[in-house]
Amino acid sequence: MASTENGRLTVKMAAAILVTGGAGYVGSHTVATLLEQTKDNDIIVVDNLCNAYCSEGEKKPESLRIIEEITGKTIQFYNLDIRDYSGLSKIFENHNIDCVIHFAALKAVGESVEKPLEYYQANITGTCTLLEVMRKYGVYKLVYSSSCTVYGEPTKLPLDEGHPTGQGLTSPYGKSKYFCEELMKDVCISDQKWKIISLRYFNPVGAHHSGRIGEDPSGIPNNLMPYIAQVAVGRLKELLVFGKDYPTVDGTGVRDYIHVEDLAEGHVKAVKLFSQPGFSGFHAVNLGTGTGYSVLQMIAAFEAASGRPIPYRIVGRRAGDIAANYSDVGLSHRLLGWRAVKTLEDMCRDTWRWQSGNPEGFKKS
Amino acid sequence: MASTENGRLTVKMAAAILVTGGAGYVGSHTVATLLEQTKDNDIIVVDNLCNAYCSEGEKKPESLRIIEEITGKTIQFYNLDIRDYSGLSKIFENHNIDCVIHFAALKAVGESVEKPLEYYQANITGTCTLLEVMRKYGVYKLVYSSSCTVYGEPTKLPLDEGHPTGQGLTSPYGKSKYFCEELMKDVCISDQKWKIISLRYFNPVGAHHSGRIGEDPSGIPNNLMPYIAQVAVGRLKELLVFGKDYPTVDGTGVRDYIHVEDLAEGHVKAVKLFSQPGFSGFHAVNLGTGTGYSVLQMIAAFEAASGRPIPYRIVGRRAGDIAANYSDVGLSHRLLGWRAVKTLEDMCRDTWRWQSGNPEGFKKS
Repeated sequence: MASTENGRLTVKMAAAILVTGGAGYVGSHTVATLLEQTKDNDIIVVDNLCNAYCSEGEKKPESLRIIEEITGKTIQFYNLDIRDYSGLSKIFENHNIDCVIHFAALKAVGESVEKPLEYYQANITGTCTLLEVMRKYGVYKLVYSSSCTVYGEPTKLPLDEGHPTGQGLTSPYGKSKYFCEELMKDVCISDQKWKIISLRYFNPVGAHHSGRIGEDPSGIPNNLMPYIAQVAVGRLKELLVFGKDYPTVDGTGVRDYIHVEDLAEGHVKAVKLFSQPGFSGFHAVNLGTGTGYSVLQMIAAFEAASGRPIPYRIVGRRAGDIAANYSDVGLSHRLLGWRAVKTLEDMCRDTWRWQSGNPEGFKKS
Repeated sequence: MASTENGRLTVKMAAAILVTGGAGYVGSHTVATLLEQTKDNDIIVVDNLCNAYCSEGEKKPESLRIIEEITGKTIQFYNLDIRDYSGLSKIFENHNIDCVIHFAALKAVGESVEKPLEYYQANITGTCTLLEVMRKYGVYKLVYSSSCTVYGEPTKLPLDEGHPTGQGLTSPYGKSKYFCEELMKDVCISDQKWKIISLRYFNPVGAHHSGRIGEDPSGIPNNLMPYIAQVAVGRLKELLVFGKDYPTVDGTGVRDYIHVEDLAEGHVKAVKLFSQPGFSGFHAVNLGTGTGYSVLQMIAAFEAASGRPIPYRIVGRRAGDIAANYSDVGLSHRLLGWRAVKTLEDMCRDTWRWQSGNPEGFKKS
């Protein structure tokens, strides 16, 4: 729509949501959900493609190209590292950005131990630079991609948001998430214009119901579900189960797995919260189902969903692993009006649909 | 000295010590001590002059210009922000740097609450960038300028290095020091070539024995000693004493004040430790005297040293202040072979010599 302001003709652009790291696993599913649910917002994605596949000659990563096909809508895409202050500024200059959902980060726990500086620069410097550019352009609404890792070893279960954070964290990845939460708290204290919602994910699994986008880890997967899926599809020979002597239902580690589409929905709810009168400051909110499943339960569920056997072998515990964690879901329900609705069957079925349809991930799909 | 290597004539440069933030208070005193004590090392200073006075037309900050006069030696100075990766790389390219002493950081607790992003970028991004450049040029020895702030509220006194860190920190400044220690620990875990000594300063005070360099805070001083000194010299009217109901000797806050020349000596000892066979990894070491003095004791000592009355007024406690802290000095003695030797009288006398000789700091000296 066009209007005149100070005698000059200005074109009012639609309010846009900027998604950093929107080509990745959780980011792309959130972009898909945003496009399916919001009519009035342009969706802009910034991603440096360090962990997203892009076909040769294509300008957009495969995940976003497929989402455009599925939704029939267009995504504005910028191949950019968020640490590029002037490049990021230009995007804010050219769009009417209303809020930011910030996924861009490195996320492999093991790799972070080997490359701490790369992780701290990507995750902390990246977040600081994004916040500086947002402030420069008067954008003060941020949804942050955090993790239940910030809780360290649970002192009680379920984990609620009042549980201490930052104690006994063993990986640079986990510390970087904790440090970012702390710095965002400080930013909210320094200027009450800020509205920041830090979503602490439990264990995201599953894939888009279309079966056309999903998790596409490079190399050997770090997480259980993609590992199981790659065993089922024949890319990997067997699953190693780390420890069967934990004080859990069957001795194997228990985690709160959550369907990535539920998770995506949680981000949309968070964005909606920004328009609630009086909402301000820093808020950390768990996104989990509240139910934990053991490794053996996950294997059984995946075997049922896929009709394939999952050969596994019990080996020793892995350093840094905890016995169990699962989320208290009270705050996410009260504050966001959100609850996970997808079941373990849904998670396994959708993972299998994606994995069996795309055995090599995006590359050969 | 010149030699031939692979048939090419190469000029072997003297091993250099790079001092970041070397124009500031503790940095400049350490540079002076290094020049007084080391014969074989070039001293290179990098400083962005954000908190150091430089006369118009001069290429070097006043503190370093005066140190050159006092010592008769030359300091290589670069006006550069350590976040400038390529600028910093050029310095490593052009010198034979053996180790780095890293002071460059923002340090005002109150200001950090107002400008958290600036503090995190300067202190964390700055440190990460420095470490990346060091690694690129194969330099793995670092002395880091840390603070007893990382301990938060003491659970017992004296504070030894095993006391928990990072808990209940209230300022972005304090958190940035803690985060930097954590990331340096991670860096040492990732690559055993690193040797990092993090010196946790208690409360640096005093000035160079020449009376020609000293602390020169911009604006109203944040710390007690320069505040007292400015009251004594007539720049400020009276001292506000925050709280007289602490569980201490006289109800006022107790701190472990340490002469900046003792502190500087501690850095020289740390550098010497690098050449000890088998020394590696991350080591945090307190630098304090082990003795705490109350605010009222400091006032009395300064009145005696200066012969001037220090008018003061008791007001309420200041948020975030703790009752008392002082250092356990065992590790610094065992590991560095260092002990503070200067007395409270020395601290007050040297502060007064600097302040009375330079009532406006470097600007009009």
